[in-house]
Amino acid sequence: MTSMNLSEFQSEWMPRFDAFLYSELDARVPSQENLHKAMAYSLMGGGKRIRPLLVLATISLANSEISEGFAAAAALEYIHTYSLIHDDLPAMDDDDYRRGRLTSHKVFGESTAILAGDALLTAAFEILAESSVISADKKIKLIGLLAKASGPNGMIAGQMDDVEGEKKTLTLEELKHVHDNKTGALIRYAVTAGCLIADADEPFITEMERFSRHLGLAYQIHNDLKDVVLDEAETGKTIHHDAALNKNTYPSLLGVTGSIQELNGVIRQAEDCLDRVALSNGDAEDKIDVFRQLLDYVRI
Amino acid sequence: MTSMNLSEFQSEWMPRFDAFLYSELDARVPSQENLHKAMAYSLMGGGKRIRPLLVLATISLANSEISEGFAAAAALEYIHTYSLIHDDLPAMDDDDYRRGRLTSHKVFGESTAILAGDALLTAAFEILAESSVISADKKIKLIGLLAKASGPNGMIAGQMDDVEGEKKTLTLEELKHVHDNKTGALIRYAVTAGCLIADADEPFITEMERFSRHLGLAYQIHNDLKDVVLDEAETGKTIHHDAALNKNTYPSLLGVTGSIQELNGVIRQAEDCLDRVALSNGDAEDKIDVFRQLLDYVRI
Repeated sequence: MTSMNLSEFQSEWMPRFDAFLYSELDARVPSQENLHKAMAYSLMGGGKRIRPLLVLATISLANSEISEGFAAAAALEYIHTYSLIHDDLPAMDDDDYRRGRLTSHKVFGESTAILAGDALLTAAFEILAESSVISADKKIKLIGLLAKASGPNGMIAGQMDDVEGEKKTLTLEELKHVHDNKTGALIRYAVTAGCLIADADEPFITEMERFSRHLGLAYQIHNDLKDVVLDEAETGKTIHHDAALNKNTYPSLLGVTGSIQELNGVIRQAEDCLDRVALSNGDAEDKIDVFRQLLDYVRI
Repeated sequence: MTSMNLSEFQSEWMPRFDAFLYSELDARVPSQENLHKAMAYSLMGGGKRIRPLLVLATISLANSEISEGFAAAAALEYIHTYSLIHDDLPAMDDDDYRRGRLTSHKVFGESTAILAGDALLTAAFEILAESSVISADKKIKLIGLLAKASGPNGMIAGQMDDVEGEKKTLTLEELKHVHDNKTGALIRYAVTAGCLIADADEPFITEMERFSRHLGLAYQIHNDLKDVVLDEAETGKTIHHDAALNKNTYPSLLGVTGSIQELNGVIRQAEDCLDRVALSNGDAEDKIDVFRQLLDYVRI
């Protein structure tokens, strides 16, 4: 058995996945050039593809055919990408830059950015519905779960709570709930979709879904902390930076040290899940390493 | 057999459909109160429900179970409603009123309007995926076709063309193409979905899809003409009203008389389709009357 760590997995699978993601765009947007351009700009915006990676690595860990996950992974990345475009709009977070590049509405104008987001959201379901490698029953389940995870009882509920939460101070429980919807739902979906496609067994599903819940939470704490720490490194401001601390964030509720402790605790719980998966899958250590190394992304 | 005309069909089926539409909203948005409110405001905005009506009346004409069309009709109305909310946004058409009521962003603010649109779009696919009365195979087809009709090679392509077309003068062919996507695609989908759910036979499908194409076109010419005629009645301005005539509209390309002639020709073609359907469905006259009377909506 070859040893397969995260960067090996990435270099083997992500170029193929990116090619699929892009060929789907050509298939879905054959004629509207500017719409295609705007959708491509954001899809190829240099994200780490964490969510698609989770789908594919879960399928791999469950010993199933990785390429069967491409449609679900692409649909998920389309949804994630649309949510960033709409989130950045002037009426929302009003961001000019994302990952060091101008945001969609700064490049293409606001109306095109709105439509590009709508188009990515709609095309996600088209990609899943038209996949030729998954059964109709599985596709229906994947579509229903994706709509739920990203819709008004999932990601969009989190975004609404976030918009409304700006006006008040949340408790730790409320903050966790917002993020559980806003970013957690899609991360959990990635793992659930992978399990579903691979026909994984119940104990595996339970443990991996638990893992995805911890990962989603760690991801958010890490994000909040990074804002504080990066600001410090870049601007020399104190850690109690107003902008970061007046918003509803983990550092504002738990302090920086408290947040780091919380983050480390959550990462440890995620590792425990992986250890339990390893126990009942003796020969899968190298595949589990992919997930262990994914956790490095969220360590401080 | 009871005589069944349009208003009878409406009073028998639309209250039940509206109840379904609304109960789906409760199911999809159980916890986010303001999101629910904004979605409900636009869903219950006093539209004529032409698209759901077409789905249900097509199923009825094909002698199948009308209530099996509720999920597809609701999904379609959700999509139509989201498109209106986003179309009205300041960055798009910047409309303060629709059907005599304030638009979503005027009532709830822009960020909520954007999210309510996204939520309706996403929930549409959830409703279809979770319907318990249609087979998985049919659901997948309905979802694929709905995404195609409303996505970047359908409605959204039309909206992009419309945004870009504002800057130049279109030919009649180009204008037809824009509207074929922008409003035609969802009207055609309504009839196609009805045929699919009812397992209609090929000749019926061909004729009814042809009908829907004419209806969609008539709908748009009528809309353009109404703007001119209404403006005249209300403001006393001449028929060559600048705002209407400098835009890409049928009256600006064909003149008012030419547009009326075009409209009448298209309606006649639509009626011919219905006559042919009637020929091979001898006992369906009353059900076909529902469609004939639908054409009254687009007569000048």
